[in-house]
Amino acid sequence: MLRLAGFASSQDISQMKSLNPGSIAPPFARYSHGVELPAGARLVRTSGQLGLATDGSVPEGSDAQAEICFSNIRAILSEAGMGPAHVCHVTAYVTGRDHMAGYMAARDRFLAEVEVLPSSTLLIVSGFTRPEFVVEVEVWAADHSASE
Amino acid sequence: MLRLAGFASSQDISQMKSLNPGSIAPPFARYSHGVELPAGARLVRTSGQLGLATDGSVPEGSDAQAEICFSNIRAILSEAGMGPAHVCHVTAYVTGRDHMAGYMAARDRFLAEVEVLPSSTLLIVSGFTRPEFVVEVEVWAADHSASE
Amino acid sequence: MLRLAGFASSQDISQMKSLNPGSIAPPFARYSHGVELPAGARLVRTSGQLGLATDGSVPEGSDAQAEICFSNIRAILSEAGMGPAHVCHVTAYVTGRDHMAGYMAARDRFLAEVEVLPSSTLLIVSGFTRPEFVVEVEVWAADHSASE
Repeated sequence: MLRLAGFASSQDISQMKSLNPGSIAPPFARYSHGVELPAGARLVRTSGQLGLATDGSVPEGSDAQAEICFSNIRAILSEAGMGPAHVCHVTAYVTGRDHMAGYMAARDRFLAEVEVLPSSTLLIVSGFTRPEFVVEVEVWAADHSASE
Repeated sequence: MLRLAGFASSQDISQMKSLNPGSIAPPFARYSHGVELPAGARLVRTSGQLGLATDGSVPEGSDAQAEICFSNIRAILSEAGMGPAHVCHVTAYVTGRDHMAGYMAARDRFLAEVEVLPSSTLLIVSGFTRPEFVVEVEVWAADHSASE
Repeated sequence: MLRLAGFASSQDISQMKSLNPGSIAPPFARYSHGVELPAGARLVRTSGQLGLATDGSVPEGSDAQAEICFSNIRAILSEAGMGPAHVCHVTAYVTGRDHMAGYMAARDRFLAEVEVLPSSTLLIVSGFTRPEFVVEVEVWAADHSASE
């Protein structure tokens, strides 16, 4: 667990606001149609993460690969004192529609304890740096708590 | 109309600056090569929007689908007190080059009254969450008017 | 050269922090897994840049096209008083895996003098606004030095 003790909720952590107008079709899954970041946030941008384990192996399937992507994202955010609740946008790219469900399962686990859900974009693209990768995930995160 | 009375121009609203160096080929269409956001903006990030009407139908063609995408984006921005003039970047994804013109027509309507044009990225990708979608649109927006 | 005299290093310029946790596989190339931007930055977002020369020609190959993309990005950033050291994220799209090496060579030249490396995303997509383009590049940049 990378979350710091004492964080009461994602609302407290991030001061992000979820934007889900009732006049449009609801989100397809557990994300927000938009997020609003008050002025004065620290921001983190990650590189696109791939399903490469530290032993150099690449597991099969989008769920297992996305699990590594999100684990990497946790580690990157942690270097900045942030965690899943600070994520304001997730973009994921998969190489086929059949890889979407596995990715979404991993995303749901990553965001399980998050109250103010990030916005999300999910696309099918042709591929990544190596042919065995089937999913790539990147995030923006924001933290308004640091007054310095 | 989502725009608030009293907003004189997009320049006044957003304090964004358009970056269009004369030394490079001009933009292909009505957008800026880059935008500069002064420090201290509130930011909004939307999810990728798709052409799903509130009755669950998906119209044919990129113009009609993009019209829904931009209508959704208006509604999302409105929840944060923003509108088209606050948009600083638009990214659109289409499933074929023949869908670009329809998308661009919808984008031009969305930005018709905007003076400081956002930057723009337009790509052909393999697809979206459902096979009937031919275009997906997402934006960043920024507002410098909120002094708090 | 667009860099201003007196800039000691990219660390001094941008106040960006590179996020490269030791617990995950290192980046594939010369970029950071993540970057942290302190609050209060001016931001620049560019449009996706393509390999279109000012005489209207499009050179062959991803290295030559990406060279134009990065040259354009230098010019756009320069309009905001920024340069390569202010770039916090680079996203590149290529139309095939065989175009990656040329793009990476151009990116390495663009970032040659940069100490705090940006995060990076590299994807294979189906195409761009015209069929002769094989690479598109866009960046975010941030500058914390402007106190106003």
